[in-house]
Amino acid sequence: MAGGGSWRWLCVLRARQLGALLRGRCRCLGVSAASRLVEAGLQPRLDKFGGLSLHLAQLRSPDSLDTATFQGWLQDSVKQWKAEGQKAIWLHVPILQSRFIAAAAEQGFTFHHAESDCATLTLWLGEGCSKLPHYATHQLGVAGAVLNTNTGKVLVVQDRNKTTNVWKFPGGLSEPGEDIGNTAVREVFEETGIKSEFKSLLSIRQQHRHPGAFGKSDMYIICRLDPYSFDISFCQQECLRCEWIDLAELAKTKDTTPITTNVARLLLYGYKEGFDKIDLTMKEFPAVYTGLFYKLYHRELPDDYRNTTNL
Amino acid sequence: MAGGGSWRWLCVLRARQLGALLRGRCRCLGVSAASRLVEAGLQPRLDKFGGLSLHLAQLRSPDSLDTATFQGWLQDSVKQWKAEGQKAIWLHVPILQSRFIAAAAEQGFTFHHAESDCATLTLWLGEGCSKLPHYATHQLGVAGAVLNTNTGKVLVVQDRNKTTNVWKFPGGLSEPGEDIGNTAVREVFEETGIKSEFKSLLSIRQQHRHPGAFGKSDMYIICRLDPYSFDISFCQQECLRCEWIDLAELAKTKDTTPITTNVARLLLYGYKEGFDKIDLTMKEFPAVYTGLFYKLYHRELPDDYRNTTNL
Repeated sequence: MAGGGSWRWLCVLRARQLGALLRGRCRCLGVSAASRLVEAGLQPRLDKFGGLSLHLAQLRSPDSLDTATFQGWLQDSVKQWKAEGQKAIWLHVPILQSRFIAAAAEQGFTFHHAESDCATLTLWLGEGCSKLPHYATHQLGVAGAVLNTNTGKVLVVQDRNKTTNVWKFPGGLSEPGEDIGNTAVREVFEETGIKSEFKSLLSIRQQHRHPGAFGKSDMYIICRLDPYSFDISFCQQECLRCEWIDLAELAKTKDTTPITTNVARLLLYGYKEGFDKIDLTMKEFPAVYTGLFYKLYHRELPDDYRNTTNL
Repeated sequence: MAGGGSWRWLCVLRARQLGALLRGRCRCLGVSAASRLVEAGLQPRLDKFGGLSLHLAQLRSPDSLDTATFQGWLQDSVKQWKAEGQKAIWLHVPILQSRFIAAAAEQGFTFHHAESDCATLTLWLGEGCSKLPHYATHQLGVAGAVLNTNTGKVLVVQDRNKTTNVWKFPGGLSEPGEDIGNTAVREVFEETGIKSEFKSLLSIRQQHRHPGAFGKSDMYIICRLDPYSFDISFCQQECLRCEWIDLAELAKTKDTTPITTNVARLLLYGYKEGFDKIDLTMKEFPAVYTGLFYKLYHRELPDDYRNTTNL
């Protein structure tokens, strides 16, 4: 499973050695600073990542708590938690209570992430650099290489906001929670009006410090799609041109990007010699954690290797 | 190129039609609310995403500006910008100026993202749902399937913090800006003490609403690695067990995850019939935007398809 090696040991340590003890301590802090937080409604909880977690949404009377008082409580509590051997504090702040953020920052808290109406700050109390997991590091872009196998023509577009005439596969950013294949099919339809079906995954590109990704990394996946409509009706706002062009032409032309050239050649190889030579096919599995399903993509396994008895 | 189709048209519209005009307007707002923001140091700039961008770090005297005054200015400015046809406002707030966040939230601003010592809020002024691009949506986990081709044995671990005896490939979360192959090699070494080299990419899994990813999506990639050390010295904090086990055994055992089973079978197929049957190999290209290099992974192209002249 994916999981940050650096914080996993912390989870183990916290969950096994400090968990029960910690909850006990938080309840019996007596006249301590942390107990004043608890009286105000802030019951620190052991976080799944192995730190203490405070949710300011639980404050009983947030409007009557001034930032100086909160800052004093937090300062004393942090000292106490550190003395108790806590490794990290997570602070969840509703946007309308954001006046407490600067107070926390004065104690060394920084933003871990924020979205919509809540910010999450962290303070690392352990030794060395923070071992807490990072927030999401990648945006995901997906394009669709829609090939009409009857004509050998593939669907390409030219972006309206680019100066050069560069053919590329239609595509765009994945929506939160959207499957790779669905992004490809949706973006192809939005840009070109062509309806299509996901067949396989062809290529993956990773690019760091992407200016269009707020400095985060960009993952860009090209999928192979089968068309089931053929009349182009392209988005005039996004595209300058949209055409079905000969795949061999696309593989040769200089009016394109290196990725498009590579994937066009790959697609030509698959078209001539069998798509099993180029495809990563998809299989669905139930997820342990969420009760949802996840999708796994890899080369198709021959029948001989699918059954345990043959191995 | 990856890029949110939904906001691309906005960029075009803004950059071409409103850019110069807008900057002119901002300078000549006279006694307007927006001009008071400018006087305070906040010069709104046309953002690459097609909205107006304000950086509170530019405030000349942030400590002498009270939140009520700021809120009044912002309220009036938002009205004015909306009347001018602006589609979106981006507000960048240094953590120590976070008292202004709640004031902005009262005007409808929400968190777009936050990291370290800065939060970015947005307000969508256009029609319908926001067409601004999302922040990073995926965390990336990478594991390494290290196969000793002399013995047919593969390196596996059992996590210390899992209750069941489940064999899996060592791996963990990618660090920001880290290449896929480097994550695999680093995590394998940290967990097992085995030194290895990246060979190829074998599988990709996408899983949404991942509890270990703060509710974001998880991308999990397994790479094929060649070992160049063989004596295990595993991390006792992370792993309960670490062994070289027979690849055919791993492909059959029930003491593992569905993904590990699938990839073990795939690896067995490659081991017996040639790794070209299973590998996505890597190629590096110069990036247009950043001056850095990016990495592209797909099936290896036969020589016949690499040269334009043959196509």
